[in-house]
Amino acid sequence: MHVKRVRVVEGVFDANDTIAGANRADFDRAGVAVVNFMSAPGAGKTALLEAALARLEQDADAPRVGVLEGDVQGSLDADRLARFHDVPVAQIDTGDGFGGACHLDANMVRSALPLLPLEEIDLLVIENVGNLVCPAEFRVGEDTRVMVCSVTEGEDKPLKYPLMFRACDLVLVNKVDLLPHLELDVDRLMASIQAVHPGVTVLRTSARTGEGIEAWCAWLRAAARPAPAGVATA
Amino acid sequence: MHVKRVRVVEGVFDANDTIAGANRADFDRAGVAVVNFMSAPGAGKTALLEAALARLEQDADAPRVGVLEGDVQGSLDADRLARFHDVPVAQIDTGDGFGGACHLDANMVRSALPLLPLEEIDLLVIENVGNLVCPAEFRVGEDTRVMVCSVTEGEDKPLKYPLMFRACDLVLVNKVDLLPHLELDVDRLMASIQAVHPGVTVLRTSARTGEGIEAWCAWLRAAARPAPAGVATA
Repeated sequence: MHVKRVRVVEGVFDANDTIAGANRADFDRAGVAVVNFMSAPGAGKTALLEAALARLEQDADAPRVGVLEGDVQGSLDADRLARFHDVPVAQIDTGDGFGGACHLDANMVRSALPLLPLEEIDLLVIENVGNLVCPAEFRVGEDTRVMVCSVTEGEDKPLKYPLMFRACDLVLVNKVDLLPHLELDVDRLMASIQAVHPGVTVLRTSARTGEGIEAWCAWLRAAARPAPAGVATA
Repeated sequence: MHVKRVRVVEGVFDANDTIAGANRADFDRAGVAVVNFMSAPGAGKTALLEAALARLEQDADAPRVGVLEGDVQGSLDADRLARFHDVPVAQIDTGDGFGGACHLDANMVRSALPLLPLEEIDLLVIENVGNLVCPAEFRVGEDTRVMVCSVTEGEDKPLKYPLMFRACDLVLVNKVDLLPHLELDVDRLMASIQAVHPGVTVLRTSARTGEGIEAWCAWLRAAARPAPAGVATA
C-alpha cells in the first residue's frame, strides 16, 4: 500500500509558512495580487501610498486597491488613507504583547482578511510595521515585496540590514528632495543596494515633489496584472 | 524549619531579567554606569556618539567611556569609533538567526562582557540594533536608556511606538539642522513625546552643526557619576 507522507511542521517559521500558503490560496481565489510593503519607521511608506492612490484614482482603468495597515498601536496611517473613498482599509494593531510585535506575520494578516472585500479589489498593499529586520523574515502570502529606504537613513543600511534588501523585489529610495541638504553619497547607497541584491529594481522617489511617483504607479499596475495561467506568482 | 521559596522563572522575559541582573552586578562591581542607546535605523546614534566622544576627549576629567556595538551584521559602526584610541569598543553581531535578531538581549550583552575592560571605564554605552520596538522590551543590565528620534521620521512616531518613548530616560531629537527643509511640526513632535512620557528630558541635537552636543555630553557625565552609597541605580 502506498504510504502518504507528510513532513512534520517545525517551529515558528514553518507554521507561519503554512498560514501564508492559506492566505495565498484565498488571494488567488479572489484574483488579488498582494504587495508586502516594508521599511524602517518614518521612511515614508504611507506618504508614498497616498501619492500613488491619488495618482491612480485619476485613471478609470487603474487597479482597484485595498490596504491593510499594520501598526504597533493606533490607526494614524489608516486614518490618513480614509480620504480615498474607493479604497477599503483595514487595520491590524500588533500591540497586544508587552511592547507589541515588531512585524506582521501570516496569522495576523489572516485574522484581518474578513475585514477586506477581496472580491472587489485587484491589489492589496500590506503596510508592515516599521522595522528593517523581522518583517523580512515572515511571509504573509504576498506576491511581491517592496521596501522603502529613505536617503536620510545613511548609505550603510543595505550592509547593516541585508536580509530586508535581499528579500524585496523593488527598493524605493525615498525623500530624494532632501539630497541637497544631506551629506549622503547617493551613488554609494545605490552601489550598496546592488551589492546586497544584484539586479534589484530601484526607483528614486519623493512624495513631496512627485519625483518617481509615475514609475511607482506603473510598478503597482504591473504588480496588479494577473499572471498568465500556469505561471507561479508566489 | 524555615522554608526558603524561590519564584519559578517563567518565559523569555524572566530569563532575560535574570541575566540582566547578573550583568548589573558585574557593572556595579566594576563601578561602571551603563547606557542602553536605542533608535530606529539611521536616526544618528553613531554620529551622536562620535560627536560626544570627540568633545569628551578634550577634557582631562571626562569619564572613561567604552562602547558595545550591536548590529545585525558587520562592524561599520564599531569601525567608525576606532579613531578614538582611548575608547575600547566591542561588537556583537545578532545575525546568526535567519535574518538576525532585531534587538540586543541580556545574554548577548553578557557574552560580550569579557571583550571589555570594565575596570578601566566609567561609562559603557551599548548601541542597540536600530529598531523602535523590541530593544525597549529587553533590559540588558543598564542604568539608563536613551533614545534618538530623528526629525526626518515625522511627528507621529511617539504615538506609533509608545513603549520605546516611555521606556527611556532621555530623548535626543536629532538632525534638527534639517528642520528648515522638512514639513515637520516640531512642536507637535515635542507634544507627542510628552503625551507618551510626561516629563521626560528631551534635547534637540545635530551631530552636523554641534547643536545640543554640549548638553548631551553633560548628560553623559552625569550618567557616569557614581550614585551615592545606598541609592539603587538599577
